[in-house]
Amino acid sequence: MPPAASLVALLHGPDQPGLVARVAGWIFERGGNILHADQHRDMDAGIFFQRIEWVPALGDASADAAAFRIFAQSLGMSARVASSAERPRLAVFVSKADHCFHDLVLRWKAGEFACELAAVVSNHADLAPVARGYGLSFHHLPVNAATKPADEARQLALLASLDIGLVVLARYMQVLSADFLRQLGRPVINIHHSFLPAFAGGKPYHQAAARGVKLIGATAHYATAILDDGPIIQQDVARVTHRHGVDDLVRKGRDLEKSVLAQAVRWHLENRVLVYGNKTVVFD
Amino acid sequence: MPPAASLVALLHGPDQPGLVARVAGWIFERGGNILHADQHRDMDAGIFFQRIEWVPALGDASADAAAFRIFAQSLGMSARVASSAERPRLAVFVSKADHCFHDLVLRWKAGEFACELAAVVSNHADLAPVARGYGLSFHHLPVNAATKPADEARQLALLASLDIGLVVLARYMQVLSADFLRQLGRPVINIHHSFLPAFAGGKPYHQAAARGVKLIGATAHYATAILDDGPIIQQDVARVTHRHGVDDLVRKGRDLEKSVLAQAVRWHLENRVLVYGNKTVVFD
Amino acid sequence: MPPAASLVALLHGPDQPGLVARVAGWIFERGGNILHADQHRDMDAGIFFQRIEWVPALGDASADAAAFRIFAQSLGMSARVASSAERPRLAVFVSKADHCFHDLVLRWKAGEFACELAAVVSNHADLAPVARGYGLSFHHLPVNAATKPADEARQLALLASLDIGLVVLARYMQVLSADFLRQLGRPVINIHHSFLPAFAGGKPYHQAAARGVKLIGATAHYATAILDDGPIIQQDVARVTHRHGVDDLVRKGRDLEKSVLAQAVRWHLENRVLVYGNKTVVFD
Amino acid sequence: MPPAASLVALLHGPDQPGLVARVAGWIFERGGNILHADQHRDMDAGIFFQRIEWVPALGDASADAAAFRIFAQSLGMSARVASSAERPRLAVFVSKADHCFHDLVLRWKAGEFACELAAVVSNHADLAPVARGYGLSFHHLPVNAATKPADEARQLALLASLDIGLVVLARYMQVLSADFLRQLGRPVINIHHSFLPAFAGGKPYHQAAARGVKLIGATAHYATAILDDGPIIQQDVARVTHRHGVDDLVRKGRDLEKSVLAQAVRWHLENRVLVYGNKTVVFD
Repeated sequence: MPPAASLVALLHGPDQPGLVARVAGWIFERGGNILHADQHRDMDAGIFFQRIEWVPALGDASADAAAFRIFAQSLGMSARVASSAERPRLAVFVSKADHCFHDLVLRWKAGEFACELAAVVSNHADLAPVARGYGLSFHHLPVNAATKPADEARQLALLASLDIGLVVLARYMQVLSADFLRQLGRPVINIHHSFLPAFAGGKPYHQAAARGVKLIGATAHYATAILDDGPIIQQDVARVTHRHGVDDLVRKGRDLEKSVLAQAVRWHLENRVLVYGNKTVVFD
Repeated sequence: MPPAASLVALLHGPDQPGLVARVAGWIFERGGNILHADQHRDMDAGIFFQRIEWVPALGDASADAAAFRIFAQSLGMSARVASSAERPRLAVFVSKADHCFHDLVLRWKAGEFACELAAVVSNHADLAPVARGYGLSFHHLPVNAATKPADEARQLALLASLDIGLVVLARYMQVLSADFLRQLGRPVINIHHSFLPAFAGGKPYHQAAARGVKLIGATAHYATAILDDGPIIQQDVARVTHRHGVDDLVRKGRDLEKSVLAQAVRWHLENRVLVYGNKTVVFD
Repeated sequence: MPPAASLVALLHGPDQPGLVARVAGWIFERGGNILHADQHRDMDAGIFFQRIEWVPALGDASADAAAFRIFAQSLGMSARVASSAERPRLAVFVSKADHCFHDLVLRWKAGEFACELAAVVSNHADLAPVARGYGLSFHHLPVNAATKPADEARQLALLASLDIGLVVLARYMQVLSADFLRQLGRPVINIHHSFLPAFAGGKPYHQAAARGVKLIGATAHYATAILDDGPIIQQDVARVTHRHGVDDLVRKGRDLEKSVLAQAVRWHLENRVLVYGNKTVVFD
Repeated sequence: MPPAASLVALLHGPDQPGLVARVAGWIFERGGNILHADQHRDMDAGIFFQRIEWVPALGDASADAAAFRIFAQSLGMSARVASSAERPRLAVFVSKADHCFHDLVLRWKAGEFACELAAVVSNHADLAPVARGYGLSFHHLPVNAATKPADEARQLALLASLDIGLVVLARYMQVLSADFLRQLGRPVINIHHSFLPAFAGGKPYHQAAARGVKLIGATAHYATAILDDGPIIQQDVARVTHRHGVDDLVRKGRDLEKSVLAQAVRWHLENRVLVYGNKTVVFD
């Protein structure tokens, strides 16, 4: 017998006494069993954050989810509720670099990501054979500066037709416009190959080599209208020395990019990431 | 106005549905406000663990603490309850090495440890001047193999007279007997200079050099009757190469020992460490 | 124009004054240009170690290599000399787990390893399709306790026929016999999923969970007749908490195993690893 | 018998064939014994770097040092030569924060730094008692915006009179003017409490908290006329989460600042740091 479906709620809103007890009490009264609950208070801002996971009583989980949203609203809280029975549909955007692409696909095949890998989308055709070798559907949608609005419209139409719930930019070398992000209305996770906010923009490994830093980094963040400025989900670094030229930074950086992006995607899919302002709370 | 005293409970016992809701409900009904709550389930063993911190309603915090203990018992749970208003009294045991000693004292003076540093105890007189330079009370209690039972009895009498709640072995080079630990009846935190279970026993840096490992480690654990075998609280490692001789391992190891021991002591004093079997749950 | 072929020598032997100058002088007099030179002295043991890389004068690099070996002998040194023009032939041994296998193959395709990936050898047939999908030659050679000597003879015959210079055990779940290793006469690199010497032998993640360690590790080492005891090339660790069950340790450990094994293989192929006694000097 | 004094040369200049052999040959011909030699080539810039350490033949080490400087010049190289018999005189600049100060002094007392700790200089009087408690000479030299040139002149006079060879800014909260640095003519090492180039300038932990980064850092660098922009010697980072407020970042950051600054000072004193352009080569 598979484990019963559970619900996960991510809540946040103005802090007030008794929130932990009231949320737990609501679930308990409806016969639910709390598996995990984790909360955080931003004392300065007076905001309460909670991730709570529970197995609802036998019956309609989606009814429970809907009822919880109304209950959260009555507490003045924003709530996102997801069921472990629903697997979001993922689109991976790539260009020519393939290391994050292979890494994501192999982890997905190994069962590390609770999602459907519904599509690979690229502005180049280079990765079509390997994508199809993995049995994945590959969509070649070129993007040009002159025709970008139309190109993005085609991307949006594809994503809508596939009911995509999450877009991952796996070293996709095009900037998504603010319009695209607004119309998409779904989260987009990007990997930037530096320790942001250092070395935003192009050629970060060249920038790092020029500055003579002793650590290189990678940052996974939600894409926003401002380049390399969205809420950070995960970051990591690796030590480098004067012996490492730009080529070595690129090579070592690939390992960082893979692990940082994979961790961010995994946390997102497990409903562990709550965005507020330009920051994230990661309940890990 | 200082922040109101809070209570912290560390609970564990057989898992059952509704525990989160019942604990939160109990606090809420008595007018308490939950600041933090963190729980964990060991699914295989069927054990529930919780750390919960709350500000009780105005009145007698120690009455609330006592009432909570009875409540926990009614749930079949073991509970340890501490008030932020009480600062445990700490004894630091040292021999001749002084790096962990200086580190602990300076952190305590910087306000990192919520305790009273009540006594420095040593089997040697070497650190008496620096201890007194810090304004600390220093007790020279020699220990010899031939007179160990009597020596330990003197130590126990001192600790009892000072109402010591925690003993920290800061590179104290004597093994405490099982009898000593049982009669003391208070936690003892030790720092071992290896990544346990590798290189237990004497001269771990020499053992590490002989084996040719690429990382050295340090482990903070609760002392038990079996040497270097107690529940692990914190561990860390540092990279070494063939260029590092034993002297370099000792030097690099000092930094590890300091930070690992300090972190373990801090977590213990914040009531974040729950022991079960021979393992710890650290609610950090 | 490709870069000129270079020679790399790994030397070691009894220390004596003037070695650095004599080696550099020998190369200089024959018109060679030293690219890198790195040396180390084990002061206690009185041993000198050097890795030196140079571009020989135009002409026969293999003659230079042979001459250098004789020169090194005249200094009382053991020397291994390799040319960047020769790419050793690699055999990867696998069983059913595929994470290290995919990682090695993808790194090899990305140009990270200076070798020919000549064969994939397995005691199971499971990975045959993916190996062939990568365009690699796959050899299914079952191994049974009852027929092990004959099974190993078949493996040795295959490796000899393919002129294999390095065997990598990528989570290969069979112990190679001392006889096999002696007859093979070529280095074998193994990945063990613990921080050796802790948790040698079977099920190291279960051992780690039972002991309650706060870090898990992986170790790449040369295989010797004694299980999990050979010279260590590389090690790394990752932090775990009580929240991580054995399944999580296995998942997190996969990432460690991949990166530690890949780093060890890369160092070996770049002739950066010198074995002496049961330890390694890694000139990185 | 103490070990014989050794010489360390740090060389750099235009690359040319035969440099390694010529330098080693020069030392060998004069009867010197090379202990360590490490070189690096910046292939793009065509620059050769070397650190070489040797025991000169019995006689006048300072004559050997002078002769080596002339020899290096004849190769078109810049050379800095230091003798292990000379211990540079160090001045530590502090303000009110004491963590790096205690750390440096205790490491110096433990023998980790090959220098004389000649003076503690501060723009505040707060640390006078602890400095004197350590037996150190403390100089209170206030600095005000209105009188800065005169204040810096007093500092320069003091440093000259004490023959200071290295200034370490241990969380000294004043910017040294370009004039000061030029007139001093000796290296100045600063610790900045961020991962530069991110969060240069004031209140870096507040900046880090506002941006929501997942790692905080510290950077030790040589001070130059441009604030927080000099050649980086060492950097490190520590992981933080949403649970860490600014106070926690400050606390965790103290540990980073201590270890990063101490490592940089140690490397500098061992003549392992070669500056070129705005970068460093660290021969560790």
